[in-house]
Amino acid sequence: MQNTADIICAIATPNGTGAIAVIRASGKGSIELVDQLFSGNLTEAQSHTLHFGTLKNERNELIDEVLISVFHEGKSFTGEESVEISCHASPFIQKEILSAIYKNGARVANAGEFTMRAFMNGKLDLSQAEAVSDLIASESKASHNIALKQLRGGFSNKLKELREKLIHFASMVELELDFAEEDVEFADRTELKNLVDEVIAYITTLANSFELGNAIKKGVPVAIVGAPNTGKSTLLNNLLGEDRAIVSNIAGTTRDVIEETINIEGVLFRLIDTAGIRDNAEEIEALGIQRSKEKIVQSSVVLCMSDLSVENDLARVNSWAEEIRNEFPDKKVLIVGNKMDLSKDEASEDVLVISAKEGSNIDALKKRIVELVVGDRDLDQDIIVNNSRHYEALLRTRDALTKAQNGLVSGVTGDFLAMDIRQAMFHLGSITGDISTDDLLGNIFSKFCIGK
Amino acid sequence: MQNTADIICAIATPNGTGAIAVIRASGKGSIELVDQLFSGNLTEAQSHTLHFGTLKNERNELIDEVLISVFHEGKSFTGEESVEISCHASPFIQKEILSAIYKNGARVANAGEFTMRAFMNGKLDLSQAEAVSDLIASESKASHNIALKQLRGGFSNKLKELREKLIHFASMVELELDFAEEDVEFADRTELKNLVDEVIAYITTLANSFELGNAIKKGVPVAIVGAPNTGKSTLLNNLLGEDRAIVSNIAGTTRDVIEETINIEGVLFRLIDTAGIRDNAEEIEALGIQRSKEKIVQSSVVLCMSDLSVENDLARVNSWAEEIRNEFPDKKVLIVGNKMDLSKDEASEDVLVISAKEGSNIDALKKRIVELVVGDRDLDQDIIVNNSRHYEALLRTRDALTKAQNGLVSGVTGDFLAMDIRQAMFHLGSITGDISTDDLLGNIFSKFCIGK
Repeated sequence: MQNTADIICAIATPNGTGAIAVIRASGKGSIELVDQLFSGNLTEAQSHTLHFGTLKNERNELIDEVLISVFHEGKSFTGEESVEISCHASPFIQKEILSAIYKNGARVANAGEFTMRAFMNGKLDLSQAEAVSDLIASESKASHNIALKQLRGGFSNKLKELREKLIHFASMVELELDFAEEDVEFADRTELKNLVDEVIAYITTLANSFELGNAIKKGVPVAIVGAPNTGKSTLLNNLLGEDRAIVSNIAGTTRDVIEETINIEGVLFRLIDTAGIRDNAEEIEALGIQRSKEKIVQSSVVLCMSDLSVENDLARVNSWAEEIRNEFPDKKVLIVGNKMDLSKDEASEDVLVISAKEGSNIDALKKRIVELVVGDRDLDQDIIVNNSRHYEALLRTRDALTKAQNGLVSGVTGDFLAMDIRQAMFHLGSITGDISTDDLLGNIFSKFCIGK
Repeated sequence: MQNTADIICAIATPNGTGAIAVIRASGKGSIELVDQLFSGNLTEAQSHTLHFGTLKNERNELIDEVLISVFHEGKSFTGEESVEISCHASPFIQKEILSAIYKNGARVANAGEFTMRAFMNGKLDLSQAEAVSDLIASESKASHNIALKQLRGGFSNKLKELREKLIHFASMVELELDFAEEDVEFADRTELKNLVDEVIAYITTLANSFELGNAIKKGVPVAIVGAPNTGKSTLLNNLLGEDRAIVSNIAGTTRDVIEETINIEGVLFRLIDTAGIRDNAEEIEALGIQRSKEKIVQSSVVLCMSDLSVENDLARVNSWAEEIRNEFPDKKVLIVGNKMDLSKDEASEDVLVISAKEGSNIDALKKRIVELVVGDRDLDQDIIVNNSRHYEALLRTRDALTKAQNGLVSGVTGDFLAMDIRQAMFHLGSITGDISTDDLLGNIFSKFCIGK
């Protein structure tokens, strides 16, 4: 565990050259430390004020003209006395300023250490702190919304409220143990059972949202499968068409490494193994499931393409989709009938007919893909879990509570009941950090960038 | 010319992902514009204060938790009412915030437009504005110092003072023209001649510093030439040795494209055509000047390597260096005698003896290379011109003044004298922007990055 009494310092803005860079220092004495290098006077400055002047190094050599933000203890992001230095964003100047501050007594901040301090000082709970990292990594509106909602409180308050109630009951049950010989019942069993039911229901809703949350966070994998010449490549081009430029604008999107991505209604979709489709490798692709299986295994959504201009092709694809549904019950399968203008068959309602070439019904297809993934959830309102650590803790909480539930039905003794509830509280508390260990914290915050 | 009444907005921090990004908006109404998207109240805020809250878009959707800096008119970098928004540095969030601000009535800032406005509003003169761009691009202490000195005023004040005096004399001389028939002399010719001499002397000193300033700005090109097996490759490795890591730390330094660079006493040196040396291509390199000529032409400093362990090699290299000095009088040539421990010849004082293999005298060599370039100038104190636009304006000013000087000696009439002085004032004024045209400004500021 790092020493929380140190003054920590790091560059907070992205690496590179630009107009402005921000260097941030936090900890008791950080204002005075920076003040020693600054032409103005920061020690008398009020919190949340900006100060223009020059910064010198320890040899009294001018480094830059800077604008310094002062934050008093209790009023900053970390909760500690903090300083932010806006300087010209040349790598040279940033290095010189850091070096001067380190020489003056601060130390290099570890990855995520500013946010960890915010957590330590009660400015954020653990799931909120984790949301900061998710927020920065967000590439789509949907994943951004989930992270921001969590940063603003999200399920934390509700979980804390439920945990408080469980704590109350657990203490009552444990109190009974102290009076075991007198056979009293401080904790009303019916009330307790209702509470346990309520918590299980809420946790189940949250846990069920994880599949969607995780898919949104990482991008929802979509496979387009079908026989040669059904128009997979044309559909792909059509889907990518207008969104391509938008995706390319996002820094760090390396088209060579990740699959092609499209952003539909703010949700990011990853189209799996498009290289094969693009290279016209589809020509040598066999018709059956076997060859496509690898793609299907990786996907959440499978688009089965049928060529409506070929007689009985739809029937064949229908039975093929049925096979996929049987073998992979967790995949969302959609039959797409292409070449609708040349259709020989009558398509049933569950087939989405399009013309990839003419671009007909492509919007309807996109809408259906989003519906398949999001279901009846409201991405703007519902709380969605996207963190696997939270998901696992929720499942463990539920396991413990289910035991308690069964115990209440079968009438187990108070000591067993208390143990199950304590266990549930432990897992529930680990989500928000009411329960935490150094290992857990180190593991979470090491995934952050330096300066956050 | 851009409309200076618009509110302009851009990302000011480097591109990419990090903890914090800063988006800057400037122009009358910018505070109110951002206030409409912000949860707090900025319109009543004092200048130089920070405000925490949330930012929403025009559809009232939450974008991020932000910290907003407010600057009142006359108190900001641009001189205009301005706002800086510190947000989480995800590309998605930055794009969303920019988009919301543009939709609310701001427009995209052009490259350098914030600095151009600072110039327009008299917060910086033109040479100071240009120094901002140099400062951001600085990769070494020496180039950083020159830019920072210029940003802090540099020669601007002195040039302005001299220009004021010239203006005074020019008006006196022109006044004489109005009274031509009366043969009066308002402008004392001896005083005028003294002033012209003074300005010419000052300008000559500044112009002479340009060679050094330009070399420092771009990195001083150094050629290492010599016969095969004299130890060029060993010397190169030795020179690069400890500095390599430092150079690699600077973002944007692409070793494949630019030459190898070393930083000696804060001055950046570029070692020319080191690929040839590294690849042992020196083996096939001929002994004479012809093959090395291309390297020498590109360089400022030429290191002629002699192998002291070979009898009479030093004499040969001496006469070879003499040839180079005759053909390229502007190059600084230094004879380096390698393998000093195996020396067969007595080296004269102007030969710097080293052992590249043992690392002996390498520090002395580095010191001598810096001396060759810097001469007796004090990089920390002297004003050094590093901008070719300023250099050319200085030369033109001097040309016009030399004409005036000659005119004063030969006693030309007042109207010729006035014309020459006006011409000198024009060129002198173009450096600081007292004289400027839209073309000139457009040309200067288009080289800036967006957001500055």
